Amino acid sequence: MPFRMPPQSETRIRVRYAETDQMGVVYYANYLVWMEAGRVDLCKALGFNYRDMELDDGVFLAVAEASCRYRFPARFDDEVVVRTWVEQANTRMAIIAYEIRLAGTPEQPGRTLATGQTRHVFVSRDFQRVRLPEKYRAMFGVAETRS
Amino acid sequence: MPFRMPPQSETRIRVRYAETDQMGVVYYANYLVWMEAGRVDLCKALGFNYRDMELDDGVFLAVAEASCRYRFPARFDDEVVVRTWVEQANTRMAIIAYEIRLAGTPEQPGRTLATGQTRHVFVSRDFQRVRLPEKYRAMFGVAETRS
Amino acid sequence: MPFRMPPQSETRIRVRYAETDQMGVVYYANYLVWMEAGRVDLCKALGFNYRDMELDDGVFLAVAEASCRYRFPARFDDEVVVRTWVEQANTRMAIIAYEIRLAGTPEQPGRTLATGQTRHVFVSRDFQRVRLPEKYRAMFGVAETRS
Amino acid sequence: MPFRMPPQSETRIRVRYAETDQMGVVYYANYLVWMEAGRVDLCKALGFNYRDMELDDGVFLAVAEASCRYRFPARFDDEVVVRTWVEQANTRMAIIAYEIRLAGTPEQPGRTLATGQTRHVFVSRDFQRVRLPEKYRAMFGVAETRS
Repeated sequence: MPFRMPPQSETRIRVRYAETDQMGVVYYANYLVWMEAGRVDLCKALGFNYRDMELDDGVFLAVAEASCRYRFPARFDDEVVVRTWVEQANTRMAIIAYEIRLAGTPEQPGRTLATGQTRHVFVSRDFQRVRLPEKYRAMFGVAETRS
Repeated sequence: MPFRMPPQSETRIRVRYAETDQMGVVYYANYLVWMEAGRVDLCKALGFNYRDMELDDGVFLAVAEASCRYRFPARFDDEVVVRTWVEQANTRMAIIAYEIRLAGTPEQPGRTLATGQTRHVFVSRDFQRVRLPEKYRAMFGVAETRS
Repeated sequence: MPFRMPPQSETRIRVRYAETDQMGVVYYANYLVWMEAGRVDLCKALGFNYRDMELDDGVFLAVAEASCRYRFPARFDDEVVVRTWVEQANTRMAIIAYEIRLAGTPEQPGRTLATGQTRHVFVSRDFQRVRLPEKYRAMFGVAETRS
Repeated sequence: MPFRMPPQSETRIRVRYAETDQMGVVYYANYLVWMEAGRVDLCKALGFNYRDMELDDGVFLAVAEASCRYRFPARFDDEVVVRTWVEQANTRMAIIAYEIRLAGTPEQPGRTLATGQTRHVFVSRDFQRVRLPEKYRAMFGVAETRS
């Protein structure tokens, strides 16, 4: 059986003036917004739209935990790339990981700005914990066996 | 019949670091967020919670138009005061007006930072236009006659 | 002399979850953030980077006035297009105009979501009003004569 | 020597409509904004204005790491309380901790919404690492000995 690279996504973001603060760099909470943009693109890379998962299946990825390590500040008009992948998942929860770096060139990758993780639980619209519907399990890399 | 001062509200806001941009002052879109904070307090001054109007009556104040004139920049940690009042209203719409200034002293009012207006239409949860329920009309200064 | 279309720019934006509110649509202040993204791209279409104008020339586009008319709500994961152009300019100020619509197809343009304007004055880093440096005037369509 | 309670601060925040998302609760990145509001008030409780530390001493609290555990969702118009304290500090860095809960009553404390930490390094305006100036050390609980 051939090795299959676990899916990941890359999201390109142009830093907005609104995202800077008076220190002249991107305000720290905005990295979590970029992570969310990465998450939405990861879902597309996995084969579904997060919007549809909410609308059609009533399943939401509630955030239970978030962390970010800031290594180098992003600045206005920088192009940044958010690389996103599933770090771990089962039918109850998923851990998503992120690497945010400056856009570079094929020869020279851009500097790493931040790395982070979010832990999510699957919930219904009224915040009751639910199991990930079967149709999404393979996409999250969750084995079909009981878990 | 005694003259009755039209209700207005005053909202005190401490400028957050997150609200500044790399120019060292408050980013312009945040004044609209402060106007919203003013609007919520105006509803309380008028005698109801906007939250309850949404939850209990299913009536929402959708924004149809917003404008702001910026006169002097607010800075991090400034205390600003948003004065808010109903400029005009009928059963279909309301125009709310705002004056945002630095907090001053009883002797010396603070400098005006911005003035603005928002025009709203009353809508249901699915964005159909509705009439303002009767129980709110007097609070908005809307005459009880047909309109 | 051939007619020359005045420069404009188009900015594509994917609506973020962060930009929605509990009404299920994009919060109204975020349209001003999108206008800023449009403005930055307009500068590029005009032939310069706004970042460089700030860094190299110490000239800033301070916002003196902003207005927006909301026609149809944008929703999470929608792709929106901000069309931006110089409405009016002289050596002291510029009025920028915006049309924000859903991304459509070549055959069928997307629905208009909002239209707006911002009025700017040129200022130095310490907020003193300055004249637009000569090298930028043609780009803003400002005649080289005294003004 | 009497025991001295380490200083902490309490910041009251009214949840803004802008801070909610289409799930009907506060968007997760906004908790980091509230933490910043807590930090600014903690500085005041410690005896100085963070604004002055930046302006007068050119010392900035750059964020090196942030984490948040989300326990219960905050909603529009909720009153939340951010309790903030110095968890650990030396002349090079400080760890600040936060507990965010619903405002309660003297008899019944409000439910805990989130807990978090931020790790900061002291830097100059150009992001070079610096030592915390002596005048601030006692306030952060840093011993005056070499470190």
